[in-house]
Amino acid sequence: MTRKPRISFVSSGDAPSGRAQRTIGLGVIGVGTVGTGTLRVLTEHQHEIERRLGCRLELRHVCSRSILKRKDLSWLGRSVKRTRDWREVLGDPGVDIAVELVGEPRTSLRIARAALDARKHLVTANKLLVAEHGRELAERSAHSHVDLGIEACVAGGTPVLHAIREGLAGEHFKAVFGILNGTTNYILTEMERRGCTFREALAEAQARGYAEPDPTLDVEGHDARYKIAILAMLCFGRAVRVSDIPAEGIARIDQVDFAYAHTLHRTIRLIAAAERRGERLSVSVRPMMIPDEAQLAAVHGPTNGILLVGSKGGNTLITGRGAGGEATGVAVLSDVVEIARGILAGSRSTSPLGYTHWREGRMAPIGETVTGSYLRLVVRDRPGILSKVCAILARHGINIDSVLQEPGHSKNRLPFVMTLEPTTEKRVSRAALEIRRLPFLAAPPLTMPFAELP
Amino acid sequence: MTRKPRISFVSSGDAPSGRAQRTIGLGVIGVGTVGTGTLRVLTEHQHEIERRLGCRLELRHVCSRSILKRKDLSWLGRSVKRTRDWREVLGDPGVDIAVELVGEPRTSLRIARAALDARKHLVTANKLLVAEHGRELAERSAHSHVDLGIEACVAGGTPVLHAIREGLAGEHFKAVFGILNGTTNYILTEMERRGCTFREALAEAQARGYAEPDPTLDVEGHDARYKIAILAMLCFGRAVRVSDIPAEGIARIDQVDFAYAHTLHRTIRLIAAAERRGERLSVSVRPMMIPDEAQLAAVHGPTNGILLVGSKGGNTLITGRGAGGEATGVAVLSDVVEIARGILAGSRSTSPLGYTHWREGRMAPIGETVTGSYLRLVVRDRPGILSKVCAILARHGINIDSVLQEPGHSKNRLPFVMTLEPTTEKRVSRAALEIRRLPFLAAPPLTMPFAELP
Repeated sequence: MTRKPRISFVSSGDAPSGRAQRTIGLGVIGVGTVGTGTLRVLTEHQHEIERRLGCRLELRHVCSRSILKRKDLSWLGRSVKRTRDWREVLGDPGVDIAVELVGEPRTSLRIARAALDARKHLVTANKLLVAEHGRELAERSAHSHVDLGIEACVAGGTPVLHAIREGLAGEHFKAVFGILNGTTNYILTEMERRGCTFREALAEAQARGYAEPDPTLDVEGHDARYKIAILAMLCFGRAVRVSDIPAEGIARIDQVDFAYAHTLHRTIRLIAAAERRGERLSVSVRPMMIPDEAQLAAVHGPTNGILLVGSKGGNTLITGRGAGGEATGVAVLSDVVEIARGILAGSRSTSPLGYTHWREGRMAPIGETVTGSYLRLVVRDRPGILSKVCAILARHGINIDSVLQEPGHSKNRLPFVMTLEPTTEKRVSRAALEIRRLPFLAAPPLTMPFAELP
Repeated sequence: MTRKPRISFVSSGDAPSGRAQRTIGLGVIGVGTVGTGTLRVLTEHQHEIERRLGCRLELRHVCSRSILKRKDLSWLGRSVKRTRDWREVLGDPGVDIAVELVGEPRTSLRIARAALDARKHLVTANKLLVAEHGRELAERSAHSHVDLGIEACVAGGTPVLHAIREGLAGEHFKAVFGILNGTTNYILTEMERRGCTFREALAEAQARGYAEPDPTLDVEGHDARYKIAILAMLCFGRAVRVSDIPAEGIARIDQVDFAYAHTLHRTIRLIAAAERRGERLSVSVRPMMIPDEAQLAAVHGPTNGILLVGSKGGNTLITGRGAGGEATGVAVLSDVVEIARGILAGSRSTSPLGYTHWREGRMAPIGETVTGSYLRLVVRDRPGILSKVCAILARHGINIDSVLQEPGHSKNRLPFVMTLEPTTEKRVSRAALEIRRLPFLAAPPLTMPFAELP
C-alpha cells in the first residue's frame, strides 16, 4: 500500500506499429473511500495497465478537500501535484482524463460539466449524477469530442455496463433484473440463512461495515433506484426519471415471510427491474418472492447480480462485488484504460450511454402489472377473520389460490398468508388498503409480487 | 424470419452533434448456422442497433459457397449482392466491416488475412483462428488501422470477452476458470441429475442437437482448449500455444463418480483453467471435482460460465448461452456495433486482444500443481487389493485421506475410491500408472483433482 506508483515503463514485447509511445495524464478529484481505493489499485496495477495500453499512464494531479491532513497520500510520490481546488486539476494541461469521485451531488455535477466543457475526458463513480444527468453529460461529451466513463456507477466490481454497451450491443433486451444493493441483499440472505429478524441482520451488516450508520438510502431501495435507472438507459436507450420509479424497502420483511417463502419453494430478494411493455417501460425496486431456482436466488451476501434478458442471446447473468473502495477502483480504472485506448486511437467520443438516439422513458404504471401475489396478515385471533378478508378480496375480483398458516405463534400475533391468483397489482394494493382498516390487525398487511424470474 | 431488413432509419430523438449521419456497410462471408443466425438477428435488431449507432447499417454483400441453392436467403432483399467468391466481398468498396463465419480453418485464415490487408474491419467467430493466429491478426489489424472483433469466439451468448477487455481493464487477473463447452456440461449435469451413464447422456445430447454426430471435439476437451487459450490471452496478455495445453475429456466419468462426489459434497465439471503461477501460466482443460458451493457448480445444462478471479475487484461470474446460431449472432453483431462506433468516432484500431505489449505464455507444467486428488478404482473382488494399492501410494510418498466404498455393486466390478492428501499431480499420475498394471483391475484407474474453486 505504501509503494510509489511506477513511473517508468519497461517494454517487454513488441509495440504494434502505428501507435506512438506517449504518456496519458490522470487527475483525481475526491479522495474518500473510492478515491483511495482507485489510487491504491492504480499503484498496484499500473504496470499491467501500461502493458494493455502500450503507453505510460501518469497520475499528475490530486484534489482533496482535506489534502493537508491526508498524510496517507505521501505514498503517491512527489511528482503528483496536490490541491484543494478542483478547478486546478481541470486547468492542468497535463491532465487528459479527470476522475471525479466526489460524493456530494451538486459539486459532482459542477465538476462534471466543467470537465467536459474543458475537453477533459471524464470518469465518474457518482450514480446519482449519471441517473439524473446522464443524457446531458453524454451530449456534452459528444459536443466536446471527449469520452465519459460510468462503469463504477452500477455494481462497482462487475463489468456490467461495458457488458451491455459493448459485449451485448447487438442484443435487443427484453428486461433487466438486478440485485443492485449489497447491504439489503446481505440483510435478506442473513434473515434467510439464520432465521433472524430484520433488526438483527441490519445490526450485523452495520457491524461488518456493509451498512451505513443511517441505512435509509439502502434499506428503502433508493440506492438501487439510481442504478436501475442507469441500467434502463443502457439497455433500452430511454431516459427514466428517477423520481418516477416506485421504490419499496425491506424493513417490513419479517422472519415469518421467509418461513412462508420456504413453504412456497421461493425466497425473497430486493429486485430492481426494468422491463419493456410494448412501447413503455415498467421500472421498479421492491422486494419480490422469486422461485428457489431463479438465478438471482443464488446471489447471497453483499454480492450484486444482474440478469439480462435478451431476445436472441438468451439470459446472461453477471455477479460480483457491488461495492468497496478497491472493487469500485477497478471499475474506475477500467474506464480510464478504455478512454486511454480511445485517445491513442485518435477517437472522438463514442456514445457513452450506449445509444445516440434516445426516447423518452414512458413508464407503464406498475399497478397495471398482472402477477400472482403474496399477502401476509398478522392478526389477533378472533372468529370470522378469514371470512371478512375473503369478502374484501372477492369484492375486488381477486381469487385466492391458497391459505397458509405456520403453527406455533401467539394468539395475539398470529401471522397467516394468502397466495392470490394473478391479477393487476392495483387491485391487490386497493384490497390491501381496505384490509388494513379491519380492527383485528396487529400489523399492516404486507404484499409482495410473485416474480417468475428465469 | 422472412422480413426484409429495414433499410430506412427513422430518427426518434436528437442525434448528438459532431457526428455525421452516414451508412456503414457490412459483408458476411459464410452462411452456415452462425451466418444464418447473424443475418436473422441483424434483420430483427437492425432498428435497435441503428438507434445505438445513430447511423444506418446496411448488409451489402453475402458470400456463400452454396448460394445458388440457398433459396432461404431470398428474404435478404434484392439490394444485397450475393457471391460464391469471398474475394468479391473484400473487393466491394461498399463493405466497411467483413464478417467471417467460415468454419474451415485454412479458408478462414486466408480470408482474415486478406480482409485486414485490404483494410476491412474484421469480425470472426472462429475460435481456432483466434486461438492460433490471434496475435498475428491483432498486429495486422493495428498495421492496417482497422479493428478486429472476436466476441463470438468464446461463450457466444455471453459478453465475456468485452467484459474482460473493457469492463475489467483495470483489473490484474489471478485466474480464470470456465465451463466453456455446452455439450459436455449438458452431459455431466444430466449424469448428475438423472444418474444415467455417459453413453445415455451423450445420446440425449445428440437427440437435442447439443452434440455433433461425431462428438470427439467437445467430449475430449479440444473445443474448450481453444477457448481457454483465448481467455488466457485477454486476461494475461500472453500467447499460449494451444497444443501446449493439456486436455482431458469426460468419456471415462461414470455414474458412480457422481455418487462418490455427492458423498464428498462435491460435483464434477469439465473445467478450463488458466492461472498465474509467478511468471508462468498454468493452463488446462479437464474434469475436476469442485465443491457443491463453488459458483461454477451452479452452472447446469448447455450453459457456459466463466469465473474471473481478480486481485482487487474480487470474483466475477458470467453465465449464459454458449452456442447456437442466434446467440452467436448477437455476439457477432455486438462486435459490428462496437467497430461501427469506432468508425464513426474516427478511431484507428484499438488493441483487439486487450494488450499491446505481449509476453510469451511460459507454461507451468501441470504435474507440478499441488492438489488433493480423487482416485477411483474398479476391481474384481480379491483379497489384498487395498494393501497393494496402499503400498504403491506409499512408495510414491502419497498420503491417503479416506477410503470410500458405496454398497451394492457386483463382486466382479467393484468400484472404490480413495481421496488423497495434497501432493503434486505428477506423483499421483505416476502412482496411477503403476496401479494400472495390477492384475485385479476391471478398468484403468481414474484420477481427478479436487479444485477448491470459489
